[in-house]
Formats: sequence, structure tokens, C-alpha cells
Amino acid sequence: MQAARARQDMLTKPQGSLGRLEELSIQLAGITGKPIPAIKDKVIITMAADHGVVAEGVSAYPQEVTPQMVLNFLAGGAAINVLARHVNARVVIVDMGVATDIPANNGLIVKKVAYGTANMAKGPAMTREQAIESVLNGVQIVEKEIEHGLDIVGTGDMGIGNTTSSAAIASVLTKKHPREIAGRGTGVDDEGLARKISAIERALDVNKPNANEGLDILAKVGGFEIGGLAGVMLGAASHRKPVMIDGFISTAAAMIAVSIAAQCKDYLISAHRSKENGHGIMLEWLGLKPLLDLDMRLGEGTGAALGISFAEAACKILAEMATFGEAGVSEKE
Amino acid sequence: MQAARARQDMLTKPQGSLGRLEELSIQLAGITGKPIPAIKDKVIITMAADHGVVAEGVSAYPQEVTPQMVLNFLAGGAAINVLARHVNARVVIVDMGVATDIPANNGLIVKKVAYGTANMAKGPAMTREQAIESVLNGVQIVEKEIEHGLDIVGTGDMGIGNTTSSAAIASVLTKKHPREIAGRGTGVDDEGLARKISAIERALDVNKPNANEGLDILAKVGGFEIGGLAGVMLGAASHRKPVMIDGFISTAAAMIAVSIAAQCKDYLISAHRSKENGHGIMLEWLGLKPLLDLDMRLGEGTGAALGISFAEAACKILAEMATFGEAGVSEKE
Repeated sequence: MQAARARQDMLTKPQGSLGRLEELSIQLAGITGKPIPAIKDKVIITMAADHGVVAEGVSAYPQEVTPQMVLNFLAGGAAINVLARHVNARVVIVDMGVATDIPANNGLIVKKVAYGTANMAKGPAMTREQAIESVLNGVQIVEKEIEHGLDIVGTGDMGIGNTTSSAAIASVLTKKHPREIAGRGTGVDDEGLARKISAIERALDVNKPNANEGLDILAKVGGFEIGGLAGVMLGAASHRKPVMIDGFISTAAAMIAVSIAAQCKDYLISAHRSKENGHGIMLEWLGLKPLLDLDMRLGEGTGAALGISFAEAACKILAEMATFGEAGVSEKE
Repeated sequence: MQAARARQDMLTKPQGSLGRLEELSIQLAGITGKPIPAIKDKVIITMAADHGVVAEGVSAYPQEVTPQMVLNFLAGGAAINVLARHVNARVVIVDMGVATDIPANNGLIVKKVAYGTANMAKGPAMTREQAIESVLNGVQIVEKEIEHGLDIVGTGDMGIGNTTSSAAIASVLTKKHPREIAGRGTGVDDEGLARKISAIERALDVNKPNANEGLDILAKVGGFEIGGLAGVMLGAASHRKPVMIDGFISTAAAMIAVSIAAQCKDYLISAHRSKENGHGIMLEWLGLKPLLDLDMRLGEGTGAALGISFAEAACKILAEMATFGEAGVSEKE
């Protein structure tokens, strides 16, 4: 990081004038251990799963949308496909626990822990064993992608009901009331939002997740894609690969990952501030400052895709700009 | 714009969930008159000129840096070159009035109005004829680029002393005291900032620019690159081409352009909020909300390059995403 900082200060621009692009390049030097890191192989891992809590009427869309959107991802027609193509990243789609079987497709990785979680408003969303399995699946998947070539990984999610689960996780860890965290997700009305907050309150009351133990929180009120994404983060960090975190759900997964192993935090970059209600509180808890603030609230990894392009740009600045000496430009008087 | 809005609402995502990317695609539909606009040919026009006001000790760098950086642009080693390559935009470098002759180079367009402006702290920066010439040069340059192929143009600047000129323009139009607008530019210390504010105060006092007339402001306290960039904006708007405005200097140019022809405002997009002090006040005066806020303050078109990538992404979302019907995804309940 010192070498990267020193080089930034020699490049033909006033020191610090590229702001967060400079900071990001220095962070990436630290993450990778390379004074001039390069980002070429870009991967977005988008994990899908279903949530039993949809029985409480917490979402504006029916559960069948989860597998329908997975098929849309595989066909290349979703927002994440478009934005991943734009930033030249490959998208890896994983079924971590969709409630139905998705027709076999070469593009789909099936790591189904179960056919959706149980309804957390009435009991634990999953067993402790399932929580561990979901995290380990995530580690395996990112390690396989690292073998294929991976300089940065973005996280993405799909799962009707998963903003409810994510808000519950955030509520446990930040100790804020669910009403301060839960938002409208895909677009519930006032009554839907009230049902959502009530479902989270009951989930916390029935399950009493242990705020000091990430795996317990994941098991009680989490989701399979959230556990999987936490695993992606832990696996990437252990291999010194940077992780570009998407929005609300990915940030909940980051909170689980950091609860399991706090050291992984230094490898996490927040791509954007989601429009979803409590996202700012979650980022504050993590101590992360998002790169972008574009009123986005889609998930899938869409914010991460845009963030990855910035990380690549930051590295190119460090690698490709001329120094004052090389360009024969006079320095500050 | 209505057609673009209607299509956005049919795409496989909750309505509005891509936030400003959706808004931007709709604005671009309006600008171009195409319900599904495409951004392929991306151009950044970076204009350089010198400023007589540097005699007042307003900059941290010597005036020779202006031509040195132009040579750096032509050699491809500056930040704007790196970021333009990143977003696949071509960079057009224009000498609008650098104080020395730059060795002939195929890549450089020479539209020198004069060898730098006069010192605005002692009299008008340029004549009215020169102000008109600088704007017309900008119109000509963008029209030539439109002939070569141009779907969006980003603006960029280089000129030691040009944050002083830009702050003076902003002070006239917003009627704020120079100390509320002027910042540290390339990095002046407290004394340098005091000299800068004092120089602007004297420039306004000596020249009494007419706040109701853009050309008068440009002539009294502007710069040749600022006039040129205003011309680029006016020319682009007249051909229904979107303009991605960079930071502090480009925003001052936008204020001149809007003062000359208010209708051009609808064609302007603000790429980012600069870290330079009064930029927020200037954007507010224009009624523009920046896309990015990354603590950047370099100029050259660096922010515009990043913004252009968002505009392209916004158009791709509109063009390439599947609709609910096409993808067989259930709609909101």
C-alpha cells in the first residue's frame, strides 16, 4: 500500500485529485499484495434461493419469480447480464436453494441446500448444519472461479423475500428495531411493509438469534443465498481477492461474513448505497463507504458490476499514467 | 421519453429499481429523440488555454504545466487518456489559447484565439470578439466530431489558473461572494487561496461583468477553453447530442452556455460533484444533479469519462433487457 501511495503521488496530477479512485487503488494493492494490481478477470457470482417467510405476505412478487428470474439470468436478459457485459465480467449463477427444480442448464451451478428456507416467523429458517453447508458452498464456488481466473468478485442475489431476511440479520447485528431497517423491497405497499416488519419482529422473538455468532444469525433468520454469499466473501478474502459488495442483501451477507471472521472486512468494497431503507445503517456498522449512490435497489449484482468497473479504472490509473518525470511535467512550486 | 419510460416499466425488474440509470435512459431518449437510444461513439473534447490571472499567484503550479500537460495528453499518459481508454472513448485535444506554441502534432487541434488571456484582475480577460471566436471554435470542433460519429460528448479542460476564472464566472451568475465559490484548485495553501479570492474580487470590481449576458461574463473573466467548451455544449445541443459535463471548469462553461441559450440545459448531464469548493452551488444554479461523488478534482474530462460509461450502461439496459412477457416472468401481484 505504501508503494502504491508513493506511485500515486508521482503521477501527473495534483496529489489526491482523483479522490476515491486513488484510495481504491491503494486498497487493492493492499488486498492483493501487489504495488500495481491489475484487474482483468472479473466475475459476478449471483446466488438464488427462496424464503419461507414469503408465507407472511412480505413481498410484492410471487415466489415463482425466483426460478423465473434464474432462467432470465441464464438466457442473458436480466439487468445483471446487461451490466456484466458492459463491464466485461462473467456472471456465475448459482441455485443455492430455490423452492423448485430449475431445468438442467449448462450455465447453472446447482448447490441447493434445500427447497427454500422454513418460515423464520415461526421457527429457525434453517438448521445450523444447513447454515454451515451454505457458507461452505460459497467458499467452494469462489475457489473454483479463482482456479478459472479471478481478479475481483462481485456479489449478487435473487430471492423473493430476501430483503426481509436481510433486514432481520441487520436488525440483530445493529440492534436497531426492524422498522428502522426494513424497506419496501421490490415494492410492497404500506400494509405489506407493516406485515414485513411484524414478520421480522416475530422471527427475532421466536428465534432469539445470538448477536455474537454469525452462523446462529444465519441459521435463525438468514437465507441460503445469503450464507453462500458470505462464503464467497470469506473464500475470496482468504485468497487475497477483492470483493465488490452489491446492495442490501449482499451487505447482510457481508455482516454475516464479518461476524464469522472479522479479518475479511479489509477485502470488502461497497459498490453502492441502495435505496432500500436501512442500507446506510448496515454500511455504517461495517465501516464501509459506498462508491456510488444512484438510487438503485435491484440487487442481482447490478451495483457490484458498476463498482467493478471503478476498481478496474483505479488500477489502470495506477498502472498506466505517466509520472511527472516520465512526462517532463513541472511539479508543484 | 414516454416510450422509453413505458419500456423501462416492462423490463424484468421492479419499476424504478435501477434508479438514476432509468432516469438517464429516459433523458437520453428525449435528447436524441429516439425511444431506445444507443451510445456507441463516445468523444471527450479536452480544451487547453492559459490565463493571465496566474500573475496574481493564484495557482500551485507554474504556467508551463499547461503545454506540458497537453503533450502528456498527446502521448497518452494523462489520467484522461487512461480513463477514456477504459470507457472506450476517443479524446480530442484542442489548443484554444495556450501561452506558448506547442510543437506540431497530428493529434492536436490548434484553435488558438490568443496566447493566453489578459490578467482579469486588471482588465477584461479578452475582447468581446475573442469571446465570440472561442465559442464559435467550440461549435465548429464538436460539429466536425459529429461528422466523424458522435453519440455523446464529454467536456474536459486544462489550464493553469482556470479554477480562478471559473470561480469568477460562478460568482457573477450565482451572486455569491468569491470566497464561497473559490477552492484550492490544484492545491494552493491558505495564502494562495487568499490571493485567489482577492484576484477574483478585483476582477469583478474592475470589469463589472453583466450577469445577464453570458458573452460579457466570458469576455471579462472567462478563458478561451471555457468559451470553447460552452461552444461544444451549444453545438452538441443544437444537433440533439447529449453532453456529459465534467467538474468545476466544465460547469462554469455550462453556466456560460446556458446564459447564452437557456434551451441547451436539457442536453447537459452532470457527471460528478467535484471536490472543488463551490461546485455544488454551481450545479444548483444549473439545476443539475451529478451522477457521481468520488472526491475528484482533476478536470481534463476525467469525471466525464466515468459518467459517459453510465450513460452507455443506461442505454444498454433500455435496449438489451428482456421484458416480463419475453422472459415469462410473473408481474407484481
